[in-house]
Amino acid sequence: MRRSTTDEVLILRWNQVRDRIKAADAVGILLGGGADLRYLTDYDAMPLERITALVGRTMAGNEPPTLIVPELEEARVRTRPSVYAVHTWDDTTDSVTTIASALPQRGRIMVSDNLWALHVLGLQRHSPNLEFVPISEAVGGLRSIKNPIERDALAAVGALADKVAAQIQNGEIPLVGRTEAEIADDIANRLVAVGHDTVEFVIVASGPNSASPHHDPGSRTVRPGEIVLFDFGGQFEGFCSDTTRCVHTGPVPAEVLAAYEVLTTAQEAAVQAAQPGCPLAEVDLAARRIISAGGYGDYFIHRIGHGIGAEIHEHPYVTELNTAPVQIGHAFSIEPGIYIPDQWGMRLEDIVVIEADGARRCNNSNRALVEV
Amino acid sequence: MRRSTTDEVLILRWNQVRDRIKAADAVGILLGGGADLRYLTDYDAMPLERITALVGRTMAGNEPPTLIVPELEEARVRTRPSVYAVHTWDDTTDSVTTIASALPQRGRIMVSDNLWALHVLGLQRHSPNLEFVPISEAVGGLRSIKNPIERDALAAVGALADKVAAQIQNGEIPLVGRTEAEIADDIANRLVAVGHDTVEFVIVASGPNSASPHHDPGSRTVRPGEIVLFDFGGQFEGFCSDTTRCVHTGPVPAEVLAAYEVLTTAQEAAVQAAQPGCPLAEVDLAARRIISAGGYGDYFIHRIGHGIGAEIHEHPYVTELNTAPVQIGHAFSIEPGIYIPDQWGMRLEDIVVIEADGARRCNNSNRALVEV
Repeated sequence: MRRSTTDEVLILRWNQVRDRIKAADAVGILLGGGADLRYLTDYDAMPLERITALVGRTMAGNEPPTLIVPELEEARVRTRPSVYAVHTWDDTTDSVTTIASALPQRGRIMVSDNLWALHVLGLQRHSPNLEFVPISEAVGGLRSIKNPIERDALAAVGALADKVAAQIQNGEIPLVGRTEAEIADDIANRLVAVGHDTVEFVIVASGPNSASPHHDPGSRTVRPGEIVLFDFGGQFEGFCSDTTRCVHTGPVPAEVLAAYEVLTTAQEAAVQAAQPGCPLAEVDLAARRIISAGGYGDYFIHRIGHGIGAEIHEHPYVTELNTAPVQIGHAFSIEPGIYIPDQWGMRLEDIVVIEADGARRCNNSNRALVEV
Repeated sequence: MRRSTTDEVLILRWNQVRDRIKAADAVGILLGGGADLRYLTDYDAMPLERITALVGRTMAGNEPPTLIVPELEEARVRTRPSVYAVHTWDDTTDSVTTIASALPQRGRIMVSDNLWALHVLGLQRHSPNLEFVPISEAVGGLRSIKNPIERDALAAVGALADKVAAQIQNGEIPLVGRTEAEIADDIANRLVAVGHDTVEFVIVASGPNSASPHHDPGSRTVRPGEIVLFDFGGQFEGFCSDTTRCVHTGPVPAEVLAAYEVLTTAQEAAVQAAQPGCPLAEVDLAARRIISAGGYGDYFIHRIGHGIGAEIHEHPYVTELNTAPVQIGHAFSIEPGIYIPDQWGMRLEDIVVIEADGARRCNNSNRALVEV
């Protein structure tokens, strides 16, 4: 269960967001459901076709934002007048008109990246004097700077995931002879057993399947003498874990071991690069250069990492395209990978949070390619 | 596990969709991930921030649509050249530019209702000569007409849900003294035990909580002498069930019984109204008039139903605003409700599929307010 957030914290968050909106020359913000809305209201909106939205305006002094809720979900909303006003709409009303009536008449409005096209296109038609801009383009992620308490929460949930990684590495979880899907179910149960509130995802990719970074665990049975990649995460009190480790069922061939050496060196270099002020792109490139020099540049086919917090993937995204600086309070994954199609793949992933003196790892299980 | 769909069926579906797009004066279609993309490709895209999209063009003769996939997910995609071309994009590329390059240069493009604002706003800027229109406004739901096989699949999954409804009604599932959350877990396990592949949702709302139509099952313990509302569904081979029944823990007070009489009469009237050619709004109004005449008009606070198929909620939505006609092959819920705040609520829900001679119910468990 998520603990409820106090009115004081929510008001503080809204004031900070409002200041950022103003600074980006916007007159308002429109959030659909999801983690940003929850961050500002503590309300968990249903992800259904009837939109729940939060509309905030910058010109209105200390006016709280307005939570727009389908009438049949009103009973789920707590009364918190200092945090939000509540406005309901029902099935005889058009949601676009309802939202438009809460927005300013003209100016720049920031919208959730994942607001539905149905709504944004409807609003454009309804309110031609408004200019809609995705939040991430205007101010980056609303939640990308974690305060010290949030950083500790990420470290705590990371430590839970590490317990399951250790169970894999010390042989507690049988692999050879079981299917990927069975092992994934086992890991999901263990994620909860060690203390997660929810399981977010489990990847188990064996042998050649490990060359598919987002492999769906399936009916393939793990065999002796191959690599098995594990990538999993869950939530604890609203914060996510996400870690990747690989093991080898039996002795590791020299070629695989050599590649793994390159991988761990690259990951360490990226962690060292993640200092406040360094461009995020440089964190990616620090690892990418080492992997390229090792001869595997064509096989590292994704960015080095993604932000994490209330969602598994959120801002900042750590790609060679993102030249914004690393900031104190950022939290993201550092997860280089090498994938040789139809043969094998490997990835090593830790979550880091950025402190004044650099990256602090939230995952600390063994980073070696353990033989099991 | 979902069975895979043959190339022939997928090609047939695309041809039908292309004809509908043409008829609506559009030159192309852009689908983000989700059920519509799966319907045309049989590919289950990851619902993450890296977009998977399907772009289809009407001018290009028999050219299949293009599936645009993040490079790291390419290994998950089957090679089916007669169904789709595959185009990958990687983390050093901008997804908007990639999608724009697959779209026509000018004209009307239909987009998924739930395409992200980030993408639609980016495409508007990139391709100012394109006009974007939500699919539902242009042609309604892509999947709203179910063929006879799909209707039978909905009847089959409905019969599974009915088994759990019967277990509740015959007292197999203890209620008094257990919390809503415990009972909901029990029902979830039973949905799988009777044959569902997945559980989509379970509502258990007891006593005054039943007045909240989308109540989250919580820590309240069920007591003797109150109403308990159950609304649940799962998937079987890619099709969803969704049914609502209420029971009473002990003798039913006269007032509640009288309201329940109104409810069942209203539901039956709506089922009878659901004939091909009748406006969808009339299905809603057929029930609403009876509930209003019974004195409960202010307490029926939602539309009568929603389409169902591969998703729990999809087109057509059955509201007083939707004047489109009921069509053979439509599948939707008929679920009137009466909700007296802080006292009690009740709802009765069956899925129906529309045949030439009217609505065929997919749910057939006891519709009485059973005492348990």
